[in-house]
Amino acid sequence: MNRVLILGAGQLARMMELAGTPLNLDVKALDVLSNKVIQPLAPKYICSDLETGIKNADVITAEFEHVAHDILAECEQSGKLYPTSNAIKIGGDRRLEKVLLKSCNAANAKHYFVNTRIDFDEAIDHLSLPLIFKTALEGYDGKGQWRLKSAVDADIIWQDMADFLDNSKTIVKQGIVAEQMVPFDREVSLVGVRRINGDVAAYPLTENHHTNGILSVSVAAPINAQLQQQASTVFKALSDKLNYGCVMAIEFFQVGNHLLVNEIAPRVHNSGHWTQQGADTCQFENHLRAICDLPLGSTALIRPTAMVNIIGEDTVPNEVLAIPSAAIHWYKKDKRVGRKMGHINVSGNNELQLAQRLQRLADILCKQAFPDLSDFAKNYLEKQS
Amino acid sequence: MNRVLILGAGQLARMMELAGTPLNLDVKALDVLSNKVIQPLAPKYICSDLETGIKNADVITAEFEHVAHDILAECEQSGKLYPTSNAIKIGGDRRLEKVLLKSCNAANAKHYFVNTRIDFDEAIDHLSLPLIFKTALEGYDGKGQWRLKSAVDADIIWQDMADFLDNSKTIVKQGIVAEQMVPFDREVSLVGVRRINGDVAAYPLTENHHTNGILSVSVAAPINAQLQQQASTVFKALSDKLNYGCVMAIEFFQVGNHLLVNEIAPRVHNSGHWTQQGADTCQFENHLRAICDLPLGSTALIRPTAMVNIIGEDTVPNEVLAIPSAAIHWYKKDKRVGRKMGHINVSGNNELQLAQRLQRLADILCKQAFPDLSDFAKNYLEKQS
Repeated sequence: MNRVLILGAGQLARMMELAGTPLNLDVKALDVLSNKVIQPLAPKYICSDLETGIKNADVITAEFEHVAHDILAECEQSGKLYPTSNAIKIGGDRRLEKVLLKSCNAANAKHYFVNTRIDFDEAIDHLSLPLIFKTALEGYDGKGQWRLKSAVDADIIWQDMADFLDNSKTIVKQGIVAEQMVPFDREVSLVGVRRINGDVAAYPLTENHHTNGILSVSVAAPINAQLQQQASTVFKALSDKLNYGCVMAIEFFQVGNHLLVNEIAPRVHNSGHWTQQGADTCQFENHLRAICDLPLGSTALIRPTAMVNIIGEDTVPNEVLAIPSAAIHWYKKDKRVGRKMGHINVSGNNELQLAQRLQRLADILCKQAFPDLSDFAKNYLEKQS
Repeated sequence: MNRVLILGAGQLARMMELAGTPLNLDVKALDVLSNKVIQPLAPKYICSDLETGIKNADVITAEFEHVAHDILAECEQSGKLYPTSNAIKIGGDRRLEKVLLKSCNAANAKHYFVNTRIDFDEAIDHLSLPLIFKTALEGYDGKGQWRLKSAVDADIIWQDMADFLDNSKTIVKQGIVAEQMVPFDREVSLVGVRRINGDVAAYPLTENHHTNGILSVSVAAPINAQLQQQASTVFKALSDKLNYGCVMAIEFFQVGNHLLVNEIAPRVHNSGHWTQQGADTCQFENHLRAICDLPLGSTALIRPTAMVNIIGEDTVPNEVLAIPSAAIHWYKKDKRVGRKMGHINVSGNNELQLAQRLQRLADILCKQAFPDLSDFAKNYLEKQS
């Protein structure tokens, strides 16, 4: 029970191999471009084709939710896939996600499914403006979204969406989910893990900040118990419903003391990368433990920890390494604008120290590449003083 | 400056690759059995021969001190070797080590070099019994040692040593170092790191326990400042003298409030494995940062942490993973009696919690394979209560 195949060979597969190697797990990954099975940390070393890869694996999991459905079916047929193909598909289709949330009574924004102009007009009638329209499939990092603030823009926005739907080449029929925009106080996420025997554990809620629609900073610090309880209850309901067997991330809008589910990801998640330095057991190891049916590791926070994404850059000044506790994680990807290239974790013995270190980090990093970090660090430091 | 070649492809090279990968370092290792350069975490993937490996590397280092001297010479000639071949050789020869200690005024046990019966008798005359005789070369994990407690055993012990010297096939001439046995209170070690520009940093002193001559448990906890200062001063003196550029471990005997150097290792060290979970930056990353001329990472203790070696066993009960903070590190080596196969790190928010977790660990692990752990954990727990 120690040969793992991951569908997808990106940074999440790499970090799973890094976490799994000390546990004696043999981690391979399907490179979806070449359709070959490789070792994530030695990608030139081609191990096999997919069929052999499935045969040679004890368990199979996915690092992203947009896996081709025929591959999911083949993996599921082997009896080795965690989570189920159903859970993965739900993570890749906002319509299925909304149905799941409803079936679990998980609070979320009022919404309406849109395929036609009639649906579109009904959405505007039934929900109150402003609305956000999101593609049901293939949306991520803020892509595939439209915002409607005033009814006068309805025609032009519908036309754009209609063109998008007409041109969509997805195998499953593309669609749009209209959501009432939530006036939230902040965005938080819960990374939880469920073992197939029903054991669950959840990391502390993480506060997330986005820049141009992409996660830029996550902070994990001691959290209000009532909020944590709310989030854990939602995680338990969803993961039990799915008979789930690995890590799941749930993004929430916090409105006052209430959490509304924004979306779920059936996998390890960017907002959980801080766990590599800040938690007893990191999300990557807990994901692997769950799929290999090993005891879950403690999800306790060791000390306040923040993660800063490195987006579109393939270097940072070496002085970053001189900040105590700073750990840089590069993904070895080719540089591209807007691409997640790596992240930096920083911890502090308390939130004040963490804020001071974030301030120092912001001072070192290039303002163009990390446009919001200085303001974030300044505000965070002011809150601690 | 990011292609690293390690001489030796054992667990230390593996753990350096695990630590170096997130920093974007490309870590290769020389397998001294096949003389091929491989990737430690993908050992089937043969990269090149040694000559090409040296050419393709930006920096070269060693995971053990018994590297063949012709290979050291070849690496040194390339101008890429850290530390110097001199430092590596000193770590592999107790005679050179003693000369270094003397030149730095580093306190150590009274000793005498022995090559002949005459030297042997003089050693007994000049030093007081009991004595310990250690081979100058190739001794490790308590191998190659003789103890002389009473003069009546001198003939029989000399005969055994003489046979050993006669049969020695080392290229450099083998020899014996006689040492006065130190009535020490405990054994501690310092893992320090020096960058070639002279920056130094040292981890907290670690308390070490041995079973049958092999390290079995190391504990890192807040330490007496005066002792830490003593050890750091020795580290600074030795590493400056050697114009050192990576991690060095120094083992000490503690006698009252004084530290006597037992031996030095010019590399990452078993007694520093706790740093993977217990320090801001682990010893493997700091070794790599030093050789790549990057800023050293903080060596601060995050929380009390212990390391338990797994010796001669290739499984432990899964329940170990349920102990909060427990991290298992397997080396993927073939099972052999007395062989270091892996280690387990455990932390606690304070020493009492660490002691309780160690007690739980001792209760789970097999008594035959971890013969001293229960007693150690019991004593440690009693000291905290």
